[in-house]
Amino acid sequence: MSFTGGRHFLQIPGPTNVPDQVLRAMSAPVIDHRGPRFAQFTLELLEAVKPVFGTSGPVILYPSSGTGAWEAALVNTLSPGDRVLCFETGHFATLWQAMARDLGLEVDFVPGDWRHGVDPAEVSARLTPDTKAVLVVHNETSTGVTSDIAAVRQAMGDHPALLLVDTVSSLGSVDYRHDEWGVDVTVSCSQKGLMLPPGLGLTAVSEKALASVSGFPKSYWSWQPILEANKRGGFPYTPPTNLFYGLREALRMLESEGLPNVYARHARHAAATRVAVQGWGLELLCADSRLYSNTLTAVLMPDGHDADKLRALILDRFDMSLGAGLGKVAGKVFRIGHLGHFNDLSLAGTLSGVQMGLRLAGVPIDPAGVTAALDHLAAA
Amino acid sequence: MSFTGGRHFLQIPGPTNVPDQVLRAMSAPVIDHRGPRFAQFTLELLEAVKPVFGTSGPVILYPSSGTGAWEAALVNTLSPGDRVLCFETGHFATLWQAMARDLGLEVDFVPGDWRHGVDPAEVSARLTPDTKAVLVVHNETSTGVTSDIAAVRQAMGDHPALLLVDTVSSLGSVDYRHDEWGVDVTVSCSQKGLMLPPGLGLTAVSEKALASVSGFPKSYWSWQPILEANKRGGFPYTPPTNLFYGLREALRMLESEGLPNVYARHARHAAATRVAVQGWGLELLCADSRLYSNTLTAVLMPDGHDADKLRALILDRFDMSLGAGLGKVAGKVFRIGHLGHFNDLSLAGTLSGVQMGLRLAGVPIDPAGVTAALDHLAAA
Amino acid sequence: MSFTGGRHFLQIPGPTNVPDQVLRAMSAPVIDHRGPRFAQFTLELLEAVKPVFGTSGPVILYPSSGTGAWEAALVNTLSPGDRVLCFETGHFATLWQAMARDLGLEVDFVPGDWRHGVDPAEVSARLTPDTKAVLVVHNETSTGVTSDIAAVRQAMGDHPALLLVDTVSSLGSVDYRHDEWGVDVTVSCSQKGLMLPPGLGLTAVSEKALASVSGFPKSYWSWQPILEANKRGGFPYTPPTNLFYGLREALRMLESEGLPNVYARHARHAAATRVAVQGWGLELLCADSRLYSNTLTAVLMPDGHDADKLRALILDRFDMSLGAGLGKVAGKVFRIGHLGHFNDLSLAGTLSGVQMGLRLAGVPIDPAGVTAALDHLAAA
Amino acid sequence: MSFTGGRHFLQIPGPTNVPDQVLRAMSAPVIDHRGPRFAQFTLELLEAVKPVFGTSGPVILYPSSGTGAWEAALVNTLSPGDRVLCFETGHFATLWQAMARDLGLEVDFVPGDWRHGVDPAEVSARLTPDTKAVLVVHNETSTGVTSDIAAVRQAMGDHPALLLVDTVSSLGSVDYRHDEWGVDVTVSCSQKGLMLPPGLGLTAVSEKALASVSGFPKSYWSWQPILEANKRGGFPYTPPTNLFYGLREALRMLESEGLPNVYARHARHAAATRVAVQGWGLELLCADSRLYSNTLTAVLMPDGHDADKLRALILDRFDMSLGAGLGKVAGKVFRIGHLGHFNDLSLAGTLSGVQMGLRLAGVPIDPAGVTAALDHLAAA
Repeated sequence: MSFTGGRHFLQIPGPTNVPDQVLRAMSAPVIDHRGPRFAQFTLELLEAVKPVFGTSGPVILYPSSGTGAWEAALVNTLSPGDRVLCFETGHFATLWQAMARDLGLEVDFVPGDWRHGVDPAEVSARLTPDTKAVLVVHNETSTGVTSDIAAVRQAMGDHPALLLVDTVSSLGSVDYRHDEWGVDVTVSCSQKGLMLPPGLGLTAVSEKALASVSGFPKSYWSWQPILEANKRGGFPYTPPTNLFYGLREALRMLESEGLPNVYARHARHAAATRVAVQGWGLELLCADSRLYSNTLTAVLMPDGHDADKLRALILDRFDMSLGAGLGKVAGKVFRIGHLGHFNDLSLAGTLSGVQMGLRLAGVPIDPAGVTAALDHLAAA
Repeated sequence: MSFTGGRHFLQIPGPTNVPDQVLRAMSAPVIDHRGPRFAQFTLELLEAVKPVFGTSGPVILYPSSGTGAWEAALVNTLSPGDRVLCFETGHFATLWQAMARDLGLEVDFVPGDWRHGVDPAEVSARLTPDTKAVLVVHNETSTGVTSDIAAVRQAMGDHPALLLVDTVSSLGSVDYRHDEWGVDVTVSCSQKGLMLPPGLGLTAVSEKALASVSGFPKSYWSWQPILEANKRGGFPYTPPTNLFYGLREALRMLESEGLPNVYARHARHAAATRVAVQGWGLELLCADSRLYSNTLTAVLMPDGHDADKLRALILDRFDMSLGAGLGKVAGKVFRIGHLGHFNDLSLAGTLSGVQMGLRLAGVPIDPAGVTAALDHLAAA
Repeated sequence: MSFTGGRHFLQIPGPTNVPDQVLRAMSAPVIDHRGPRFAQFTLELLEAVKPVFGTSGPVILYPSSGTGAWEAALVNTLSPGDRVLCFETGHFATLWQAMARDLGLEVDFVPGDWRHGVDPAEVSARLTPDTKAVLVVHNETSTGVTSDIAAVRQAMGDHPALLLVDTVSSLGSVDYRHDEWGVDVTVSCSQKGLMLPPGLGLTAVSEKALASVSGFPKSYWSWQPILEANKRGGFPYTPPTNLFYGLREALRMLESEGLPNVYARHARHAAATRVAVQGWGLELLCADSRLYSNTLTAVLMPDGHDADKLRALILDRFDMSLGAGLGKVAGKVFRIGHLGHFNDLSLAGTLSGVQMGLRLAGVPIDPAGVTAALDHLAAA
Repeated sequence: MSFTGGRHFLQIPGPTNVPDQVLRAMSAPVIDHRGPRFAQFTLELLEAVKPVFGTSGPVILYPSSGTGAWEAALVNTLSPGDRVLCFETGHFATLWQAMARDLGLEVDFVPGDWRHGVDPAEVSARLTPDTKAVLVVHNETSTGVTSDIAAVRQAMGDHPALLLVDTVSSLGSVDYRHDEWGVDVTVSCSQKGLMLPPGLGLTAVSEKALASVSGFPKSYWSWQPILEANKRGGFPYTPPTNLFYGLREALRMLESEGLPNVYARHARHAAATRVAVQGWGLELLCADSRLYSNTLTAVLMPDGHDADKLRALILDRFDMSLGAGLGKVAGKVFRIGHLGHFNDLSLAGTLSGVQMGLRLAGVPIDPAGVTAALDHLAAA
């Protein structure tokens, strides 16, 4: 990669660009995690993190990636051999069901084309009397397609299965309502809308989830000892102090902008991105206009053009990282992340880089994309 | 706590004081963990971390606390119902066996008085034909007592059990030889001798450990997919980028000082601390002079004096955090951490704070402790 | 100003965006400025700074703004009542001559229209036998017009006057040759092409300048004691340690990119910016195409449109700071800074913000500007 | 210097150890110094800085060292040839009078032995009808001797001369009252009690000082244009933005501790240091017990022992920088800085390092010094 001056554009759909003030907050000295100052700080943090989940219940913080929070959601609520219902909405939904399988769960995996969200009608149809949990990815990071969580929940009706939702790439960027929608476990992580480096897993849990009897051998992921220790601002094992500092600062930034404004900002940038893609004459991977992701956009390459070559060219020429096509769509799509600490001019720079890259890669496009997006941004 | 100017003295036996240059390294921007730069960085890091373990084999890095690395050691090598041999050398040895029990292992727990290390003779005596693993804590963070790992290994003779060792508060501060001593899994974490914030678990694994067949349902902790991805500088899930940056810098600092010098420095500070304790006329918790810890010293309070009141007074008056007595010795001991990013004058400040605190708390001591320690440091 | 997420775009022509690694370098602990480590560091720094000036002679560093370096240049080479020749190329040239006047110098101030550089023919014509110095601004920060320093020097012929040059907004971004062109004092500062916060003034001095006899009462600015102390890596008064750390890092970045590449990058961005301006159908302030600045572009507003209203709108809507019209051209021009730590996508974001702002402000433009600039960048 | 782990002890009497939070504050992005946010910030800062000076009048901030503020004080209030009265209280008083001389002032320099403060009786005695200003160093950084500014002022009676005071190493650490004591110009800088890196000069000015007619040619140092621009939160030239950020944070820390507490802390540490020196059986340079400095202590070496060798040994063995003897007392004294961001345990570490160094250097001392100081600190 030839250095070109200036800041790298990290426009993968996470990890996202960490704001300077978050990095500075994370540089504060480590303090005694068993001392009085840390306890007070923790109690405050555990409250402050609730609004992004739309919950008044507990949120559990792990030193882990989001994958760890996935595992925590499963092993705290289920037992080996339990039946769970999953939907193939993309790469991460596929990985989550693979984890469920690895852990010894019985998985009903409803196939999908990676261009649509979960069909609520399928949810009702596929539930069986012994289904113990439904696993849904809110915002598929690999496809830029969302699923309508409230509709999924409604489709479950009175069925006693738990609803477990992955919000890895939506939390903090898109309106989400754990309590109102009736979600049982919401899984997320630090490095996307929460604008932190990776290393923190989060789960919000309903009372029903907490009451579930799990048969998995477990220790690290166990909710109960954590919740017990959290009451006094403590943890059963050493928490990631400096990511906590960063989380507190990131939440303050979101509060200060106002969550509705944050969500509107993401919606606006997503819409402008789609305007650019349509302006270029390219196709979105997401085939359902009601379910466009507000945090990333996956773009299909025209036949005969390789997405990874495009990404490599853009990285080399413009020092911008874009997301690769994963799994089934490897080489066929590239993904533009437009979430987290991001604004109109960063988006303009991002879309400009994509447009220049497409032209240099010889992809036949209409160069009106960026102009159309700017017009959209100026008008909105 | 009344603010008294100056920097806090964080003299718990971990988390330790993170060096400025490590915090600065951790402030570098997050980069694409699937991109070429990160892959190259990772490959280099995975080599650079081996010397502190004394291994030429793989070291596996987790976004987790040290507790997570404990769990990883168990679930990758054992199966529910397996028999393991543990020794009650202190609080953390007790917690590790409790985790083993929670995970469904059969635990032989050899009682101890928290003032001695593992007795190699007991190891031979307690091994049964179906013992699958021996779990030993190298340096008991709760007591300041070490165990002689080479001797434990020798006492196991030809027995096929695995040897799993916790080096949470010794790694990077004390000479340790995973390969030479024949350890199968060495467990550690970031926030002690490696001078990082918490959030990173590490395990070094022998070929024998890698070959063991485990019956635990597992996904996050599974070594195989991590090792597979590591070959190309990748990870099966998002790694804690910024802690990696910090680890690279911390390893560079250790390399630059020279590991033998680092170990000698810790030995020297531990000896000076014991000189101070003896100068005060107080008793060490560690009752075996061959097994003194080089990273922390636990001091017994005279009868009628409460260690936690002393710690609170020292925190309030001198802005220094000391380690509490844990479990069985709660209130009866306090622990002085003298590890990590630490030098003679920091130690002198630390011991001075303890001496002043003891006097203010009305503990009958001889104030010759600090002077004796200084004489020791100047002579050494 | 409404917060819009993401990083502020600081596109004034200095201070410029300070790179993260420079800010981190500046966070290193202050060390003893009379100790051996600092002396060694200083000696190395004083060499490392020479290439950006194109000199093998001494460069003098002041804790000061660039204005301080202006004053240093005058009071070290001249005496009250001396005659100097200045050219009204813009606001900063006007300020420098005002300073000369304030200090009691006799100033011949050749009027100008702020749209052209110094005319070498005027230099020859205006020199008088008692002219002691010619003061020229290399790159007028207020206008985006340069002057041809080599031509000015040539026009001076054998006249004994000194040539003093302000490179405040060109140094480190544009090829500059103190020695080769025969400049006597080159004045600069930290917060433009050197990518540092403000606080450091720099002067490169020729042997002739050093030999000049000055009649000004002076102490702080005196070159001799500084040069004397510099020999051993010292300073006659406390130097700005942390800006020095940052300067060392910034110079390393420039070295690593390669100065010719740095200069080419700035030329390319300037050309793309002019393409955008022409695309919009707007007029450049600079009326001489041989003298376009590579670090900033000043754009004339169409009649009836106020530049400051535009800038306020852009700051409010797009969180971007642009440079104001100064002095004579206040309200009539806005200035786009495209220097320092800057790359293609930052420029694309910058130009996009200007284009959107112009449209929102009701300025009649052709929205083809950004697209034209992108085409230029992709082609170049 | 052999690296010994841990943080360097920077115990010169300035620059002092910069607190982490100040360094972090200084890492914030540079913003437009002509924009609305900066103006608001500046107006607030210019108020916030007044209490440490004990003034309700203006404080002027320069991108400069303290030496620059010295020059500003002289050139704004005096004219070449004016007579000023100076006192040889130490190295910096000598340097200030030398600057006065260099600038063409007529200096009456009252000799001194570097062990006493200014004698108020001498002030009255030496004032002549044409004395235009009296220059006094409040706290001699080279000797650890203060002068009683209120008494000096009183001794001046109705004489119209201005009183100019250097508070470089006292401001922010010692009670100081510009208004109440009737000082005309108070000169200071950033890198001592204000806990910042070097690079900022400060002057507080009385109305009388502002009204004085100065005959020096000047521009950079001129108060009037600065005060004029300050009214709207601006500056006549680019201010050192990031030092301003740091100053705001440092002032917040002082406010939060409470200035009287800050002063009491410094007094306490100075007293404990003298207890240690007396415990060692060594002699203080300051021969007047009413005028001990609260920010540094200069210690006389016994005959036959070289202070610089001691300092080199301490730097090498204990990674601590102490202040050298300057000028007349070079090699004969070493100076311990105990100011700024500093607490009891840092002081204990500092004194321990001195004690160990003295013994290793073969200086005959009583090792009871540190113990005595600790007893003093615990009692106080």
